[in-house]
Amino acid sequence: MTETEAPTTAALHLWEEWPALSESERVERFRELPQDEVNDFFLTLDPTEQVALVLGLPPAERVLWLRLLDPDDAADLIQISPPEERAGLLELLDEQTRTEVRALLAYQEDQAGGLMSPRFARVRPDVRVDEAIRYLRKQAGHVETIYYAYALDSQQHLKGVISFRELFQAPSDKLVQDVMHTEIISVPEDLDQESVARIYVEHDLLAIPVVDREGRMKGIITFDDIADVVREEATEDIQKIGGTEALDMPYMAASFGALVKKRAGWLTLLFLGEMLTASAMAYYQDEIAAAVVLALFLPLIISSGGNSGSQATTLVIRAMALGEVRLRDWWRVLRREIIVGISLGAVLATIGFIRIVVWHGAFHLYGEHFLVIALAVALSLVGVVLWGSVAGSMLPFILRKIGLDPASASAPFVATLVDVTGLMIYFTVASIVLRGTLL
Amino acid sequence: MTETEAPTTAALHLWEEWPALSESERVERFRELPQDEVNDFFLTLDPTEQVALVLGLPPAERVLWLRLLDPDDAADLIQISPPEERAGLLELLDEQTRTEVRALLAYQEDQAGGLMSPRFARVRPDVRVDEAIRYLRKQAGHVETIYYAYALDSQQHLKGVISFRELFQAPSDKLVQDVMHTEIISVPEDLDQESVARIYVEHDLLAIPVVDREGRMKGIITFDDIADVVREEATEDIQKIGGTEALDMPYMAASFGALVKKRAGWLTLLFLGEMLTASAMAYYQDEIAAAVVLALFLPLIISSGGNSGSQATTLVIRAMALGEVRLRDWWRVLRREIIVGISLGAVLATIGFIRIVVWHGAFHLYGEHFLVIALAVALSLVGVVLWGSVAGSMLPFILRKIGLDPASASAPFVATLVDVTGLMIYFTVASIVLRGTLL
Repeated sequence: MTETEAPTTAALHLWEEWPALSESERVERFRELPQDEVNDFFLTLDPTEQVALVLGLPPAERVLWLRLLDPDDAADLIQISPPEERAGLLELLDEQTRTEVRALLAYQEDQAGGLMSPRFARVRPDVRVDEAIRYLRKQAGHVETIYYAYALDSQQHLKGVISFRELFQAPSDKLVQDVMHTEIISVPEDLDQESVARIYVEHDLLAIPVVDREGRMKGIITFDDIADVVREEATEDIQKIGGTEALDMPYMAASFGALVKKRAGWLTLLFLGEMLTASAMAYYQDEIAAAVVLALFLPLIISSGGNSGSQATTLVIRAMALGEVRLRDWWRVLRREIIVGISLGAVLATIGFIRIVVWHGAFHLYGEHFLVIALAVALSLVGVVLWGSVAGSMLPFILRKIGLDPASASAPFVATLVDVTGLMIYFTVASIVLRGTLL
Repeated sequence: MTETEAPTTAALHLWEEWPALSESERVERFRELPQDEVNDFFLTLDPTEQVALVLGLPPAERVLWLRLLDPDDAADLIQISPPEERAGLLELLDEQTRTEVRALLAYQEDQAGGLMSPRFARVRPDVRVDEAIRYLRKQAGHVETIYYAYALDSQQHLKGVISFRELFQAPSDKLVQDVMHTEIISVPEDLDQESVARIYVEHDLLAIPVVDREGRMKGIITFDDIADVVREEATEDIQKIGGTEALDMPYMAASFGALVKKRAGWLTLLFLGEMLTASAMAYYQDEIAAAVVLALFLPLIISSGGNSGSQATTLVIRAMALGEVRLRDWWRVLRREIIVGISLGAVLATIGFIRIVVWHGAFHLYGEHFLVIALAVALSLVGVVLWGSVAGSMLPFILRKIGLDPASASAPFVATLVDVTGLMIYFTVASIVLRGTLL
């Protein structure tokens, strides 16, 4: 974790301009920074930006920057480097760090083990408080945080934890084991980062210990890693909700090719799904030919279903991500969405009905059967909005149940689903209501 | 900030069941918790849940829980309580805290001043390091974090900052002002919380000082406040992107009335906007009557525009929220989206063209002019997808420029905008391409 050494004016200035610079300009400007500012500047960059910068430097200079990083940050950087560069970068580290980084690289990047730092403050449970404080002072320069000290037995099993502040306030002659907390919140090394972030935020911890299956302590995850995860996960969810694959890089840093690739997949899938509307429309071709007026309201009706579905799906996806809604809550959510869907449908139906009647009064657009048409539109709206709310809210549950990411129930996905079915609802309602008049 | 006292089994158990319990069940189960677990349990709850719980308790018990909170957390709780309860809750605090809370309540909840705690560790710049450490030890029980100590002059101007770890490693006989950092990252008291979170995460700080216009230190914002903000802001953005007003409460905690109210506004606005499609369709009524086959592809084409627009808008909204894209970058984004939009449009146009030709070969659905129809659909797709990408990416810039939240450029909003214009693009292209054949 970087300390509070604030970037001074030249660094702040470069930080301002950074997003607008090309990679070669970045390297050049970075090398011009004064000696006393350049380290802090480097440490405030994202790992992706650090990689680009380091690889843009001559090999002799790379070593400086790699050795500046804590092992968990160095592991992150190496993990996202191009495969052919990784071995070379690893070689630049000093021996101890290299060993630690190799161990960290064995974890998935998005697991607790991939987030943690192996450099935490440790104490023996059977030493006196004043000895522990003295021992911690010696460790201060080498650990990620001295805010918590972890009490380990000789086999590295995590036995207790004590905050530095508590140790400070405890009587000097007590033993650590008498003042430490023994009910410890820890996470297993293979827990996914989204769950780690949830536990972390729920319990307001400053650092969380990572243990293996045998309860041996492997490292700590500190707040800076978590803040990044919380943002990353939200970014991924937002991008998925928008109907894109997660970019995994800043928007402006993505090449045209990458942008097209990340978007074309879903867009094509949705397009193929939406083709069913053409088939469904072909099925109702005779009705449309007999009453062209029906087609006029088609976009209005199916988009209302898509909009209500988009609302429902984003609310449920976010509630799931925050742990407010769990798989077993599907029935309670369904019940809510049925009532909400009928209410929202009734609001739109009323507006739609009035709109048709008033417009007809003013412009005589819809022929003698305008009242029946208004009725068909209003009834369809209730049905379509209800269906949109139900489909949109249940889709994330179905996706999670079959092991997929609920956030894939994107607004466009739900809209497409509801377009096809909404169209069928509309023409079915219309053919019943208009039978004997227009059809 | 709560320390690491871990909830033990009974509390963890209740925590598990919490979301599924009614308010009265929550109060009842909460009161059954063992004495040594109940405090920690209370502190892990959200402010909304704390309010509900406290107000569910008899007045005599309320005082216990209110006094457990740090002033910033107490202020949060009082701020979100029903107006008629606020004065009563304020009365329950001890006198010093009440004064601090009153001062905090003067700030907007979503400004730096509303997030900060007035309890930070302070030192004089002109004392020796060992004296400073001794003085900090005394403050340890009363401040939010001792991780950073702030050096203030006699008028409370912030002169420097030093981390506890650095103080620890510094020679005892130096003065604080010789070892402290004087380039300080601080935020003004009226800065909005989204910007505070961005600065915080960019600089990997553990706490950030809040100063007034004269540079006097007013408080600190610590990581737990920021983690909540990062999540809250992401939740608001996601809900807005889905086309709902921000709920400002957990989905399952919202009443039916609140859910309908938060959703009906946007849904109705979108519905009114979408009504323009009916007017536009009425304008092209003769074309539809002459070539019903045109109507068949209408949902397919307009939804493709909506989907590409939804992708573009969510990518840009998120990039703006993360500070990757700024207002002045609009031209670079536009250039990207034009190229990406044409590429994506070309992909869909190719698929659409092939689909129509193949289907026609198989089912003879589209009459003798099927090739011209396929051409009209393909060209419209390029135009609509391009337009969707451009409109979707530029809308957040326009909203921000006129002072609105870019996240209001929701997927449904963009889809509605693109539906109306997409329809006009389609019929214009069709009437040009099909002139002399079908029209």
